[in-house]
Amino acid sequence: MAKGAAELDDLIHQRVRLGIMSALAVSESLTFNDLKDLLEITDGNLSVHARKLEEAGYVDCIKSFEGRVPRTEYRLTDTGRRALEEYLNRMEGLIRTTRGS
Amino acid sequence: MAKGAAELDDLIHQRVRLGIMSALAVSESLTFNDLKDLLEITDGNLSVHARKLEEAGYVDCIKSFEGRVPRTEYRLTDTGRRALEEYLNRMEGLIRTTRGS
Repeated sequence: MAKGAAELDDLIHQRVRLGIMSALAVSESLTFNDLKDLLEITDGNLSVHARKLEEAGYVDCIKSFEGRVPRTEYRLTDTGRRALEEYLNRMEGLIRTTRGS
Repeated sequence: MAKGAAELDDLIHQRVRLGIMSALAVSESLTFNDLKDLLEITDGNLSVHARKLEEAGYVDCIKSFEGRVPRTEYRLTDTGRRALEEYLNRMEGLIRTTRGS
């Protein structure tokens, strides 16, 4: 029952990372600055959490240049989309159980 | 949009604390050992997180004796129940938005 919480993917559950994953689920790709503005977090905070998601294979990070300005773009990988889907399913289950009172 | 994640009550969002709150939502009260068995966590881990919830006024901790054996019981306060309800509502909103893709 309450064990449901322990089964939530901790890589996604952390609030900043959940925000990143959720944002990328509804946009094909977002730049570093898009995400920073959307989540209202610092560069450092976003970097750390985006890197964790990248290392898990949940997001791809594409670096390029617009003229001379470096541009970092993120998108959800298929693995990330599946992991997010599973996370949402488990969270829905937990909500249902908790509301069942 | 993705800001939804930032609006989740961090006191409840942490996985162990979410497990505690969720378990207490469906039981009038649970002992320390009930919670420990249910969540499959160590004494130390449960103590730390239960205390945080107590300090926030989300759970009440009632200490008593059964014969000579100390007994610690937890229950959700009204404040805790309202905070959990709000957390679940926000999480449902975030799930809806994320699935809206």
